[in-house]
Amino acid sequence: MTNQETAPTAKDYYFDSYAHFGIHEEMLKDSVRTLAYKDAILGNKHLFKDKIVLDVGCGTGILSMFCAKAGAKMVIGVDMSDIIHKAREIVKENNLSEIVTLIQGKIEEVELPVPKVDIIVSEWMGYFLLYESMLNSVLVARDRFLAPGGIILPDKATLLLAGIEDAEYKDEKISYWDNVYGFKMSCLKEIALKEPLVDTVEAKAVMTTAAVLKEIDIMTVKEEELSFKTDFELKATRSDFAHGFVGYFDIEFSFCHKPVRFSTGPHAKYTHWKQTVFYTHNDLIMNPNESIKGTLSLKPNERNPRDLDILIDFKCAGKDCNVSESLKFQMS
Amino acid sequence: MTNQETAPTAKDYYFDSYAHFGIHEEMLKDSVRTLAYKDAILGNKHLFKDKIVLDVGCGTGILSMFCAKAGAKMVIGVDMSDIIHKAREIVKENNLSEIVTLIQGKIEEVELPVPKVDIIVSEWMGYFLLYESMLNSVLVARDRFLAPGGIILPDKATLLLAGIEDAEYKDEKISYWDNVYGFKMSCLKEIALKEPLVDTVEAKAVMTTAAVLKEIDIMTVKEEELSFKTDFELKATRSDFAHGFVGYFDIEFSFCHKPVRFSTGPHAKYTHWKQTVFYTHNDLIMNPNESIKGTLSLKPNERNPRDLDILIDFKCAGKDCNVSESLKFQMS
Repeated sequence: MTNQETAPTAKDYYFDSYAHFGIHEEMLKDSVRTLAYKDAILGNKHLFKDKIVLDVGCGTGILSMFCAKAGAKMVIGVDMSDIIHKAREIVKENNLSEIVTLIQGKIEEVELPVPKVDIIVSEWMGYFLLYESMLNSVLVARDRFLAPGGIILPDKATLLLAGIEDAEYKDEKISYWDNVYGFKMSCLKEIALKEPLVDTVEAKAVMTTAAVLKEIDIMTVKEEELSFKTDFELKATRSDFAHGFVGYFDIEFSFCHKPVRFSTGPHAKYTHWKQTVFYTHNDLIMNPNESIKGTLSLKPNERNPRDLDILIDFKCAGKDCNVSESLKFQMS
Repeated sequence: MTNQETAPTAKDYYFDSYAHFGIHEEMLKDSVRTLAYKDAILGNKHLFKDKIVLDVGCGTGILSMFCAKAGAKMVIGVDMSDIIHKAREIVKENNLSEIVTLIQGKIEEVELPVPKVDIIVSEWMGYFLLYESMLNSVLVARDRFLAPGGIILPDKATLLLAGIEDAEYKDEKISYWDNVYGFKMSCLKEIALKEPLVDTVEAKAVMTTAAVLKEIDIMTVKEEELSFKTDFELKATRSDFAHGFVGYFDIEFSFCHKPVRFSTGPHAKYTHWKQTVFYTHNDLIMNPNESIKGTLSLKPNERNPRDLDILIDFKCAGKDCNVSESLKFQMS
C-alpha cells in the first residue's frame, strides 16, 4: 500500500528488506505460538461474534485475521513498524479489509475509530517473558480502550526458574575465553558471564524442582509490578551438578471455553523463545532434596530501559557444597 | 581500557553488550576461518620476522596477536567499532602491548605511526564474499600504506556459482507464503524470492558443474572492478531438478611457503558464511550435460550502498525444459 500512497523512502525500503521481515517469518513459523492463538481465537467463536477487537503489535496481521474469521464485527490492528504496510496488503489479499483496520502508531498516542473495544489480543512476549516485551503497551491499551467486562487474550503469564546440569555448553560459552587459540580473553568471558544466554535446554538437563518467580494477571497487573524481587527455592531431584539456572514462561488464555495453554519450558516443544540460561560462577554439587535458596530481582536498566537488569543472589548449602553467589545479569 | 580513560557512554555500553560481541564469538569459533589465518601466519614466520603489519578491521585482535607471535616487529590493528576497547584489554592481558598498537578509526582517515607497512592482513569477507564486505577498506589500506614489495594475506578470492536440487527447503521458504494458517501472503513471498538466502547447502544438493564468477587478486584489483557482469554456464552432472543456484567463495593465501586455502562451498566444512542460495521461479528439469547459460551482474545498491544488487539472467533449454528467467535479487 505504502508504495501507492507515497514514494518509498530508504527507511520504508529497509523495512521491506528480509532482514526485518525475517523475524515475522520466525514468529509465524513458531507453530506452538501461532497455533495457540489460532486455537484460542478460532476455537472460541462465541467470544468473538460481533465483537470489536484490538490487536496490539499486529505485525503481519495474522491474529487480526484469525479474529475476523472468528466472527468479530471489527478488528483494529496497531503496530509501530512499517511491517504494517505489508499487513495491509495481506489483509486486502484475503478480502478482510472490510473488517480489519490497520493503524501505524504507538498505542500510547494512537486514536482508534471507536472509543472502546471488547477484546484485546496481543502476542507481546519477549525472551524470558519480559525482555523487549510489549506488555507495557498492552497495559496501556487495556487502560485506554478496554470496555468494562472486556477480555484480554492471553490473560495469564507465569515466569519460572529451575537448576540445570550443563557442563558441556557452559564450557563452550564460558571457559572457552580462557584459551582462544592460545590467548586469554578475560574481558569477553566477563561479558559472556553477565549476559543471560537465550538457547535451547534439554528437559533432561533440569535437575531441580521449578520455582514460580512471577504470576502475571494481564487483566489487573500494573506496570510498576513488572519490576519485582522474589524469593525462590530449587530442590535437587537427583544427585548432579548444577551449572546454572534456566528461565522460561507459560502462557494461558483462560477466557477460552477450554483454557488454551502453552509452555516455553525445556520439557515443552521448541518455540522461538527457546529458554534463557543464567550460569553460576561455581558448579554446585547437589544431592537429592538439597536446595538452592535465593532471591531474583528484575527491572529495566536505568540507562537502557530496553535492557533488563536481573540480579540473582543464592546460597547452596549441602553435604558436598557450600556456595553463595551474588550474580548481576544484563539482558541486552 | 576505555573505562579507565573516560566514563563509558550509553554507546560504549551498547558495544559492551553481548548483542554486539556475539558476532565476534561466532567468527572466532569458526575454526575453518580462524585456523586458516593461524596457519597462514604462524606457519610462515619467515614472512613476518621483524616486519611491520597492518590488520584491517582487527575486531578482537586475534589476527594481530598471531602476527606478533609470528615475529612481527610492529603490528597496527585498525577497527571502527568499539570492540577495539576490548581488543586493547586482550592484547594487554596477553602481554603484547609492546608490539601491537590498536587504533580506532576508518582506514580512509586514520593516521598510522609509520608511513608504510610490509604486510596487510585482514579478514574482510562477507556473505557471498562481497555483501557488507570490508574489501574496499583493504584496497584503501593497500593504496595508502603498503610498501613496495609488500604483501597482503589473504591475496586471492574466487566467487563461484552452481545449480542445486532443493525442493524441500524451497517449499518451506517460498511456497510457504501461499498458505499461512489459511491465509495468502503474496507480498512476503515476493520479498522471500528477491532476497538471497544465507544458509547451509548439502554437497549432494549440487547437481551441476560450478562456474567461476569472479577471481579477485587483492594485490592489484581496483574498487570499480568489484561491480561486474559475467557469463556463466552450469552443466548438469545428473538427471535432476534445479530449484536455484548456490553461491560461495574460496580464499587463498598464496604468499605462504605452502599456499593456505579454504573454501566456503557446499562440499567443504561448515563456516559461519554458510552458502548463499538464489531460487529460480521455475523448477528446471535437467538431464546430464544439459546446461543453464546465463549472466550474473553484481553491484552495490544505489540507494543503500551496503546492499548488493544481483541480477541473474539465464536460459535453460534441454530435452524436457525450456525456461528463461530474469531474476533481480537484493542482499540486505
